[in-house]
Amino acid sequence: MREKLIIGMFGFGVVGQGLYDIIKTKKLNLEIKKFVIKNADKKRSLPAELFSTDPEAILADPAINTVVELIDDADAAFTFTKRALTSGKNVVSANKKMIATHLEELAQIQQEHGTSLLYEGAVCGSIPIIRNLEEYYDNELLHSVTGIFNGSSNYILSKIFSEGQSYDAALKKAQELGFAETDPTLDVGGYDPKYKLAIVASHAYGIYVDPKDILNLGIDKLADQDILFAKEKGFKIKLLPLAKEINNNEVVLYVLPKFVRPDNILYNVENENNGVLVKAAFADEQFFYGKGAGGHPTGSAVLSDIAALRYGYRYEYKKHLDAGQIRFTSNYVVNVYLRYAADDVLQNLAFESITERFYGEDFNYVIGKINLQEIIAKRDLINQPGNFIAEVL
Amino acid sequence: MREKLIIGMFGFGVVGQGLYDIIKTKKLNLEIKKFVIKNADKKRSLPAELFSTDPEAILADPAINTVVELIDDADAAFTFTKRALTSGKNVVSANKKMIATHLEELAQIQQEHGTSLLYEGAVCGSIPIIRNLEEYYDNELLHSVTGIFNGSSNYILSKIFSEGQSYDAALKKAQELGFAETDPTLDVGGYDPKYKLAIVASHAYGIYVDPKDILNLGIDKLADQDILFAKEKGFKIKLLPLAKEINNNEVVLYVLPKFVRPDNILYNVENENNGVLVKAAFADEQFFYGKGAGGHPTGSAVLSDIAALRYGYRYEYKKHLDAGQIRFTSNYVVNVYLRYAADDVLQNLAFESITERFYGEDFNYVIGKINLQEIIAKRDLINQPGNFIAEVL
Repeated sequence: MREKLIIGMFGFGVVGQGLYDIIKTKKLNLEIKKFVIKNADKKRSLPAELFSTDPEAILADPAINTVVELIDDADAAFTFTKRALTSGKNVVSANKKMIATHLEELAQIQQEHGTSLLYEGAVCGSIPIIRNLEEYYDNELLHSVTGIFNGSSNYILSKIFSEGQSYDAALKKAQELGFAETDPTLDVGGYDPKYKLAIVASHAYGIYVDPKDILNLGIDKLADQDILFAKEKGFKIKLLPLAKEINNNEVVLYVLPKFVRPDNILYNVENENNGVLVKAAFADEQFFYGKGAGGHPTGSAVLSDIAALRYGYRYEYKKHLDAGQIRFTSNYVVNVYLRYAADDVLQNLAFESITERFYGEDFNYVIGKINLQEIIAKRDLINQPGNFIAEVL
Repeated sequence: MREKLIIGMFGFGVVGQGLYDIIKTKKLNLEIKKFVIKNADKKRSLPAELFSTDPEAILADPAINTVVELIDDADAAFTFTKRALTSGKNVVSANKKMIATHLEELAQIQQEHGTSLLYEGAVCGSIPIIRNLEEYYDNELLHSVTGIFNGSSNYILSKIFSEGQSYDAALKKAQELGFAETDPTLDVGGYDPKYKLAIVASHAYGIYVDPKDILNLGIDKLADQDILFAKEKGFKIKLLPLAKEINNNEVVLYVLPKFVRPDNILYNVENENNGVLVKAAFADEQFFYGKGAGGHPTGSAVLSDIAALRYGYRYEYKKHLDAGQIRFTSNYVVNVYLRYAADDVLQNLAFESITERFYGEDFNYVIGKINLQEIIAKRDLINQPGNFIAEVL
């Protein structure tokens, strides 16, 4: 029943090292035969013969039956993953961008070659959300999946709302601690949670959606006025991706900052932690909480996938077979707060209705209903400095 | 790949009705052919030919390939389940007592006959904890599993701590709302969470433990003095089962009321909700939250099991194969608060150390360390009116 796994690993960064730490404390029936790394000169803590800079050292080695892919470069990751899957090797990856972008093709390759690609570590670190959506909620009409998918943004927002820091100070702190990259756009711009959302949507609803078609606006334009506004109302701001079924056969997907009330279970998810809120008919609200990022939590998710490969586990993508009639849409009206610098921003946005208008010395805002399609069409306008948009729930 | 499920269902109570409600809104490839009920005279909302009082109407019908068992009587449930599994039918059950008591035998029968028994609905309603312990955490050194497993007790404790009610008033309210039985001992005495704990321990650690060997003390002796004591310290009292690995190859299991601090994620699990806290190496704390009881949440878990049967899913009991060296123990020292009425209670209990003693006009207590084995040995003494014990974390 259990095959011995001979592993080739691409990358030896924080997750790779975390995984190695975990593996060496276990008596698992597996062996890491080769690490392929980019930089041959970096000093490594393991014997030199374990390392190579040549991808063929893994891909062309028939003894290696399992590839663990933990590199940042989504294009290279896709090339390696495809090669591995088509040549009979199973793959575990934590590369959300690569998976979100190529999921349909990757599912097809697995089907054709009888191989398995697992990626629990790509979405919300240690929280087993993909497996649960794939296996447990397949029979339910899922109303929605949302949550804190991005630890970096959430860490920044926690510092702002719990410790009174400004956006810039909180971002700097997050960068110092390694929770945010030097270029933080991927996180604070909402791209990272968007990739995760696309993967979630696939396992929740059986649809493949190109991340490019999903609206993401982030917290990078958040200003002190917005923070004050939220605090006065008793809200926190959280960056929340949402997958939600509407009209019984359409699914809306988007990532926006949202004002969250204290009675929302996500209100209390702080710092770099992640939380996923699943609403399903009859089961009602289900909440999954855990460490979302870091070498060890992600490493533990990757290891769970590796362990599952020992039993021949694969995602069946079952819902895609049934999902013929479910389709992605952005035709959905949201209620938003929009702070704007110049009047022409507001004039150029077709709100369906406006319930509040505020003009002040140093900022203006409106609250009103607007279609996601309109936000998408005017996305570059909204994203100009001086403007900030957040959903009001 | 998908077999059409022809279902025979034992029982048509709140969960059975909930399940029926769910099924009729879905386009699932399944059919309920027969309900076997105890009371033929009760008025039913469905056609009479669907009902029978004869178990053979299900068990002897070769067309029925799936048995859903939702009756209270654990002995009858075991008889029906065994008959079904040995005659090639798969079974879904939510009967925690039956499963906890006979799990080893039931696992063996499944093995011998190639049939599948699923019971996600038996533990924490809609929360998919069994599936996650079985499938996802199999590779990890699980440090512990604990949580709010019993909605009735937790509802009572919530009313006491959030609304200032007395134990008696809260119990009465819970009974009026149907959250507690006329004889509430199963819930407030900690038996129900103990059965769930035994099942959890099996899927977490690969051990079969007779529930009779697991200590359970409940909240039924909780008095106003205990409540006041907890509130003054800023604690809530929660009834918490615990499975915890100690000494690397032993697992301790027990159910005790515990003083819980505000920084514990279980502190905020209120009313009839359930929450499961899993601590694992590297993954750190993982928390699962959802509706723990009621017809619809339990019905949705039962339906998830039914849906999984369509794909031939079975628990592999994988950990039992590896678990040779892990064994159950009660040799474990806990730090407890003990309120006692008569001095001989204290004199008869061998505390290892005592850190606080309080003598008052209307109550006395001590806080100190005591071995679980000593509590088990003196269980009847502790359980006398006038005494209350709770773990201090």
